[in-house]
Amino acid sequence: MRQNAEEPCRGRGRPQIRPDEETRNLIVEAARLEFQTKGYAGACVGDVAKRAGVSTKTLYRLIPNKADLFKEVVNERISRFMVDIDAVVADAGAIEAALERILVSYGRLTLEPATIALTRLVLSESDRFPEIAATFYESAIMKTEKAMEAWLRSQCARGIITLEDPRIATEMLRGMMIFEPQRAAMLGMRTPPNDDEIVKRAKLCARIFVNGATAKATSTHH
Amino acid sequence: MRQNAEEPCRGRGRPQIRPDEETRNLIVEAARLEFQTKGYAGACVGDVAKRAGVSTKTLYRLIPNKADLFKEVVNERISRFMVDIDAVVADAGAIEAALERILVSYGRLTLEPATIALTRLVLSESDRFPEIAATFYESAIMKTEKAMEAWLRSQCARGIITLEDPRIATEMLRGMMIFEPQRAAMLGMRTPPNDDEIVKRAKLCARIFVNGATAKATSTHH
Repeated sequence: MRQNAEEPCRGRGRPQIRPDEETRNLIVEAARLEFQTKGYAGACVGDVAKRAGVSTKTLYRLIPNKADLFKEVVNERISRFMVDIDAVVADAGAIEAALERILVSYGRLTLEPATIALTRLVLSESDRFPEIAATFYESAIMKTEKAMEAWLRSQCARGIITLEDPRIATEMLRGMMIFEPQRAAMLGMRTPPNDDEIVKRAKLCARIFVNGATAKATSTHH
Repeated sequence: MRQNAEEPCRGRGRPQIRPDEETRNLIVEAARLEFQTKGYAGACVGDVAKRAGVSTKTLYRLIPNKADLFKEVVNERISRFMVDIDAVVADAGAIEAALERILVSYGRLTLEPATIALTRLVLSESDRFPEIAATFYESAIMKTEKAMEAWLRSQCARGIITLEDPRIATEMLRGMMIFEPQRAAMLGMRTPPNDDEIVKRAKLCARIFVNGATAKATSTHH
């Protein structure tokens, strides 16, 4: 009965069976730890099953191979940011405060030790496993970047800011927020910023960026 | 005679003997290629000597070990940027144009394929060789960052811009300029920007940053 019970549809199209989803979450968290500990090349799917306390048969039924396990780990990380940015989009407030919220969420995602370890793994092993570079680029970098770019474009459309090139501006914003602290942490030269530091950085970043992009007479464009 | 001729002092304290300097340059370029091809762990000092066309005895006389070879490769990369930023400091022009020059030089340094390869090597191998992380952090990251921060502080001191936290602002500026293009290139997902793109990006970056940091009434600080 529990195995096959269909739960009420939670707004995503197909009904979900709770036990499989819970099992899947355990597997994804186990995979994250496995990758973090052994790298991508060294990770063993059988050991992921052991860490998750499931049989390899169950694991393979839910997630058929190592590349998909990796993709699930990336998607799980990104999902919280996507929820946060959707909330900001839905709640049209003052631009600087809205941008701060987006940057805090982006900073919490990308400056968390688990994400730093994942990013470092991808950079280290992408020459041997181009598929993990492609997964990370599409499912993490481009997905979050497009969401941020769409939000910035909506602010431009409302006439609140002016950006000559919103795609490059999005990249700049992301770099402002995380580049040096993330790299220093990947190198083992600094501990990642704590939450207070992330919030402070997001404030400084939002202020400079919004001031800098506020439509004004100095621009020779348009 | 050539071997021991002392050249006129070129302003750096001790007199230089030209042939050794030339030999050293050949060795450093050979080491850069060796590291780029084989990584740090795989690089062989004997093969560096072969690439440079010198004896291992000469190599060891000039640069005593692999860690120092690596340091020389990093220092050689950074030196051009240091010359450029010194020139900007010496030539007090309009802030936006000056910042553009600094960012173009920083972009050319950090988005060049050879530097991207070096950065990726450090990120990949820093867990096994913390000494290369330390060298890269001190001799590349901190050295260039301190030079940029000193310049930003001088602009603040002249009252041209206001930065609540010049150190974090310097990190932001660097991230704006190179984070996404450098990372995408390290992942093999994009070719590094060409020189026109670097110049365009530096312009956009300087405009947003200077506009954003120009002292105005909206700031609640001071």
